[in-house]
Amino acid sequence: MFQLHPRLAADTLPLGRLDLCEARLMNDCRFPWVILVPRREGITELHQLGKADQAQLLAESARVAAQLQSLGVEKINLGALGNLVPQLHWHLVGRRRDDPCWPGPAWGCGKSRPWNDADARTLLLRLRRGLGLGEERP
Amino acid sequence: MFQLHPRLAADTLPLGRLDLCEARLMNDCRFPWVILVPRREGITELHQLGKADQAQLLAESARVAAQLQSLGVEKINLGALGNLVPQLHWHLVGRRRDDPCWPGPAWGCGKSRPWNDADARTLLLRLRRGLGLGEERP
Repeated sequence: MFQLHPRLAADTLPLGRLDLCEARLMNDCRFPWVILVPRREGITELHQLGKADQAQLLAESARVAAQLQSLGVEKINLGALGNLVPQLHWHLVGRRRDDPCWPGPAWGCGKSRPWNDADARTLLLRLRRGLGLGEERP
Repeated sequence: MFQLHPRLAADTLPLGRLDLCEARLMNDCRFPWVILVPRREGITELHQLGKADQAQLLAESARVAAQLQSLGVEKINLGALGNLVPQLHWHLVGRRRDDPCWPGPAWGCGKSRPWNDADARTLLLRLRRGLGLGEERP
């Protein structure tokens, strides 16, 4: 049975449930940064997903990317690393020229800075509305 | 008309021509690192590709990933960043626990170390054979 990896759960805030993926907001206010985790057990590489799941992941990724772009970011950085957390998770990081890691990658750059509650709530609400998701019940 | 971005051309060695993508070996012997560049003009984000092209990119990515895994790497890191070079290019980085950047990302980590000619030739030959490509004529 699919279970979100505890390290991913600890590093993120729940955004919502898409058809294939759990969407989570990375708890780092330096970037609008969403991870998508396909609810499939034991998958560590993108290519282990079936073709339909791959297409669905990209479709959900496009929906999230459009929401991040609506926040005024200049570039979306996509990535699947998994060197520390083997469970396949797909990063979408909204990047701005004035963010503290530009033009380098967000991964491995300095220390994350947790969202404050009010800002997190505002962003999550906006993203959920944009994605057509209801209120998350934790 | 599609033209490989000059910065990508300068940083890589030609690996071969897949149905959709130019495959290039990053000129950095710290990792077996391939980039795939869809031969489509003016594309900067994965989601700008049509759905068939997205599926084709992932299929070509899976073929390359299998070749990288046959080299004995422990993880494939995938990414599309493009903060410096806007032309969409898809990274596949073969990672090992003893590589100089593990477990951090390869992007933005230290200085690249160019391949020597003999090692590059050996690796390119092996990858081309695995991918069913003929000899590259530069």
